Amino acid sequence: MSYKQVVVVDEKLGMSKGKTAAQACHASLNAFLRAERPLRKDWNEQGGKKILLKKGDHTFGELIEKAERLNIPHYKVKDAGHTELDPGTATALGIGPAESDKIDKITSELKLIK
Amino acid sequence: MSYKQVVVVDEKLGMSKGKTAAQACHASLNAFLRAERPLRKDWNEQGGKKILLKKGDHTFGELIEKAERLNIPHYKVKDAGHTELDPGTATALGIGPAESDKIDKITSELKLIK
Repeated sequence: MSYKQVVVVDEKLGMSKGKTAAQACHASLNAFLRAERPLRKDWNEQGGKKILLKKGDHTFGELIEKAERLNIPHYKVKDAGHTELDPGTATALGIGPAESDKIDKITSELKLIK
Repeated sequence: MSYKQVVVVDEKLGMSKGKTAAQACHASLNAFLRAERPLRKDWNEQGGKKILLKKGDHTFGELIEKAERLNIPHYKVKDAGHTELDPGTATALGIGPAESDKIDKITSELKLIK
């Protein structure tokens, strides 16, 4: 079985490179902590594949609904608002780790962050 | 006690925003997994503060040596080389979670990634 995790970032917020990376780390780690232990282990031992995608015109709510329907762990990051953004702004969504095929059902239309 | 994690990225590799974020996520998660469980919990419950820094003219080896001397968990990411970089290139170093004061002894001279 092949596993991955996807991190969807709201690129339209215009976050800097450092801010984007920090928000992605929050999303990645906390979605990971919501996964079952054997899955965490299998995924990380495979190299812990992480794919960074842009939210584009989708909404976090829509992606979360799909993840819930497929029973995939997920975590939406709300920014504390100390630096670049208003408090409570949703910046990133971690989806998985989960089977790659299942995650593709949610995010196959999203584009890579360059 | 106040805790944080620092992720040091080799910004001179010229990685894209998405690549930088992915490497930071690898560093963050794997350094976290090397920390003691109570520390993981305390840090994450405090909000899991993550600071993204540039390596600058320092070396990962030098930073790792300091982290080891202070008994701080750390993880250096080596890129698989599938995309932008040569295989085995060291891209990022996760340091902590640990007490903020202890981490500052290692990285106080490093600059934020903007």
